Amino acid sequence: MSWRATVLTLFPEMFPGPLGVSLAGRAKEAGAFTLEAVDPRGFAKDKHRSVDDTPFGGGPGMVLRPDILSLAIASVDDGRPKLLMTPRGAPISQDRVRALAAGPGAILVCGRFEGVDERVIASAGLEEVSVGDVVLSGGEPAALLILDACIRLLPGTMGHEASGSDESFEQNLLEYPQFTKPQDWQGEAVPEVLLSGDHKAIAAWRRLKALQATRARRPDLFAKYVASLTAGVDKPPKTE
Amino acid sequence: MSWRATVLTLFPEMFPGPLGVSLAGRAKEAGAFTLEAVDPRGFAKDKHRSVDDTPFGGGPGMVLRPDILSLAIASVDDGRPKLLMTPRGAPISQDRVRALAAGPGAILVCGRFEGVDERVIASAGLEEVSVGDVVLSGGEPAALLILDACIRLLPGTMGHEASGSDESFEQNLLEYPQFTKPQDWQGEAVPEVLLSGDHKAIAAWRRLKALQATRARRPDLFAKYVASLTAGVDKPPKTE
Repeated sequence: MSWRATVLTLFPEMFPGPLGVSLAGRAKEAGAFTLEAVDPRGFAKDKHRSVDDTPFGGGPGMVLRPDILSLAIASVDDGRPKLLMTPRGAPISQDRVRALAAGPGAILVCGRFEGVDERVIASAGLEEVSVGDVVLSGGEPAALLILDACIRLLPGTMGHEASGSDESFEQNLLEYPQFTKPQDWQGEAVPEVLLSGDHKAIAAWRRLKALQATRARRPDLFAKYVASLTAGVDKPPKTE
Repeated sequence: MSWRATVLTLFPEMFPGPLGVSLAGRAKEAGAFTLEAVDPRGFAKDKHRSVDDTPFGGGPGMVLRPDILSLAIASVDDGRPKLLMTPRGAPISQDRVRALAAGPGAILVCGRFEGVDERVIASAGLEEVSVGDVVLSGGEPAALLILDACIRLLPGTMGHEASGSDESFEQNLLEYPQFTKPQDWQGEAVPEVLLSGDHKAIAAWRRLKALQATRARRPDLFAKYVASLTAGVDKPPKTE
């Protein structure tokens, strides 16, 4: 059965958007996944189809009403993980993406402006996730990004292409630098080891570059990498 | 003058995509920003319009050629910041988004699959940025997300709506929880303080909730927040 994505959004016309093109677009046509966008406005009760209201306690912006949003969520809830796109959420990780891609699909709830009523989060069992420490106009760009990351992992979607990048991230390391033709470009040659045909030396060089880049650019990831190396080493070595 | 976004992408049909809808769409129609998507294929030299090739040293996937990509970049380079979307980059921050939005615009370079030839990064002066620790099918979803974050900050685009969220993130704190109508919903009432009309008490409650959420969910941000409070305190207090 296809992987099933459902996005709850006040702007269903944003979907599939970039997911209808290129790799994701081909996967969609091949039936690797389905994508539906559901507008909570369809569950509003008044003639203006209101879905949001001003925040209690004051402040700018509008907040999605819990009663309307929960009806919209209930209408598509079939046991798939339900994610709320919010800057208050846990940063999305490749591990989480991999788990989502291995499951039946996902429901992604997009807030706009000041977000959603807090009560609906526990009531509907929403998992709060964030994508980068930036403020968006709404959850939709985050939903598109997470879906893209999931879709490329679906069976048959990318195959061979996926393997390199995935291994890097699994180990909490950044990728090694890449080089392609032309071999000499603007006086800059490709590192010699990559032309050597010595697979062992190439792997060692790439690993070193990945380690160096991670330590220099992402000390947070590097710390996780180091911790993973020593995981399970609980006891100090015996001394005389 | 309008803020100017240029995206270098092998899939120009992905743009404006979600940025042509809702808040960004209205800002675009009002002339707050322009968005052009430029395909590096237009700069290829062979009849197959090749832009990528296999990586030196082996491995899966294809790498964007430095010669073609640098021509494409040069064709749009007018001094705006040039960002490369890559998981090897520095995580995008709201501070960086704010600086970009305050400038003339941005050029966003999207790689696909195994990325771009390393030599073009220094040669073209690309700033490597990442959006979340996930692997995408290409840089396009990241570019859409960063542009959305910039566009909502452009003068006149969002105005009043923007202020609440921005203040939170500036201080390295997550936002406080929001509540709206109905006041009682499924037996759950809105926190009483929010109905009190006591602005000082509301502000204090929201600040406490923001602090608690940040400490519980994002110890990394909380550490930055604490550090910012004590910035400039270099000397220990005098002791007897």
